[in-house]
Amino acid sequence: MVSPEKYAAMVNEAIDRLELPAQPAGLYEPIRYALSQRGKRIRPVFTLAAAQSLGFDPQEAMSQALGVEMFHNFTLLHDDVMDNSDTRHGRPTVHRRWNLPTAILSGDAMLTLAGQLMGTDAPYPIVECFNHAAMEVYEGQQYDMDFESRDDVTEGEYLMMISKKTGALLGAACQIGALRAAASEETARDFYQFGMNYGLAFQLRDDYLDTFGDAATFGKPIGGDILNEKKTWLWIKAMKEGNLAQILAKGLQGQDKINAVRAEYQRLGLDTEIERHIQHYIDAANDCITRLSLPAEEAAFFTSMAASSALRRK
Amino acid sequence: MVSPEKYAAMVNEAIDRLELPAQPAGLYEPIRYALSQRGKRIRPVFTLAAAQSLGFDPQEAMSQALGVEMFHNFTLLHDDVMDNSDTRHGRPTVHRRWNLPTAILSGDAMLTLAGQLMGTDAPYPIVECFNHAAMEVYEGQQYDMDFESRDDVTEGEYLMMISKKTGALLGAACQIGALRAAASEETARDFYQFGMNYGLAFQLRDDYLDTFGDAATFGKPIGGDILNEKKTWLWIKAMKEGNLAQILAKGLQGQDKINAVRAEYQRLGLDTEIERHIQHYIDAANDCITRLSLPAEEAAFFTSMAASSALRRK
Repeated sequence: MVSPEKYAAMVNEAIDRLELPAQPAGLYEPIRYALSQRGKRIRPVFTLAAAQSLGFDPQEAMSQALGVEMFHNFTLLHDDVMDNSDTRHGRPTVHRRWNLPTAILSGDAMLTLAGQLMGTDAPYPIVECFNHAAMEVYEGQQYDMDFESRDDVTEGEYLMMISKKTGALLGAACQIGALRAAASEETARDFYQFGMNYGLAFQLRDDYLDTFGDAATFGKPIGGDILNEKKTWLWIKAMKEGNLAQILAKGLQGQDKINAVRAEYQRLGLDTEIERHIQHYIDAANDCITRLSLPAEEAAFFTSMAASSALRRK
Repeated sequence: MVSPEKYAAMVNEAIDRLELPAQPAGLYEPIRYALSQRGKRIRPVFTLAAAQSLGFDPQEAMSQALGVEMFHNFTLLHDDVMDNSDTRHGRPTVHRRWNLPTAILSGDAMLTLAGQLMGTDAPYPIVECFNHAAMEVYEGQQYDMDFESRDDVTEGEYLMMISKKTGALLGAACQIGALRAAASEETARDFYQFGMNYGLAFQLRDDYLDTFGDAATFGKPIGGDILNEKKTWLWIKAMKEGNLAQILAKGLQGQDKINAVRAEYQRLGLDTEIERHIQHYIDAANDCITRLSLPAEEAAFFTSMAASSALRRK
């Protein structure tokens, strides 16, 4: 096993080596652009690490790792169109840098390329697992959009939505790495559950940081979810258990609105309650690792990834 | 073998039986809507017919036939967004009836569903063949968009573009039916070439009808391509061999423009030349059927499909 950063570097090298046709440039250049943003590559890192933790050469799982990353970047590309976002990671989004048809068509091609990568030298169940996760992601995105126009979203519905939108792909990333290493169904399922629980913790931490994080480390302005009245876990709980509706009725704007809503979250103790929830999912993720009975170094890789996810500041 | 209409009816029945989840309705209702337009279902008809012509039960190839049709309807859905079209087959397009995010996300889900259908009970080479055709279709669509802003598109480039945008999927539809019936590589290749040549004839006939067809049977106003200055085969030839540029420089509008451009096409003899080209591709398609040495009834199905494509009025 190597560090997450080293796995990410392997993924970046493989992306740089990825052979895409030169023509038509209008189709393939936006794909290279979308893939070239240097994120943490968490999903393909999990694919490679899961494969290697079972004794498989991670380079042999690289096509599947790239397939997962290709799919993830496809969802970001199309989500940016749906949300009409201007920038991502400080760069213009594809539909801004090029145009709407280019963003749609390049994204479509990325989805097919992801499927091709997934099936490269791999048994068909990996492709099935990938397709299933993809459907979950679309359903999660649809629920997320549906929730924006509803005022009665429950905590359970919210958790269902993020399990699909965020958890399913992280689960599949781990599962696919395990399947590539010819894992048993039970082992593959435990890896899936690890990624799923990791994903739930990851998303709740994201909700926490958007409201209680430090702008200097988070990388985006704090309070964006509150200004957009996004149905996060914090929002849903404060709407049900507190006076959020009355506070919103005051019609506060900007920083005043952020401060008032955040104070209500704190009055209800939601800032500490969400941390307990995050820890719950981290514990559940670690239980999966315990069940897998991996060697110590291999197990430590995954538990340390989970621990740092609960503490991350960006 | 049964008639094309009977195969199409089998496809429609299977679409009606297709089990999609009920929720989230915002994702699955547009998919049902997109699939429910009763077109000729040419692509899945070819998949079923190719399988049956090799002695295979067409119902056993239905998942693949539906996969081809699902993919085709996905491309129409996303193309309508890219072209900003308001209607298709007399009904509002998905992005008009719902909205842009719905059209993008439902289309994405259709592409994944197509991949799932393709792999159902089928060997992986069928999925590879499908993915390859999908990439061809995206490339064809990109070239088509690129050509709109170029004045120097050659006849060869145009034929390359339509072979990707239209020919590749018709080729794959036939090839996949053959592969489902465990055809040899050579047989599968001949079926692909049949579909490819059929597709080229089909698209050139479309170009012909848009200019020289009868509005009453064609179903759309005649001359749309001319008004949109679409780089069709007729346009490219008249630009190179005739006085199309000078005619356009007059700045004619509407029916005057259609009449002037059409007269130039006729002066150059392009209306008869395109018919010769269409016949050339029909002959090439029939050569593929001859090479396949199918029984008489099976061969007649495909040659009669090809012949009626060259004569179709809508």
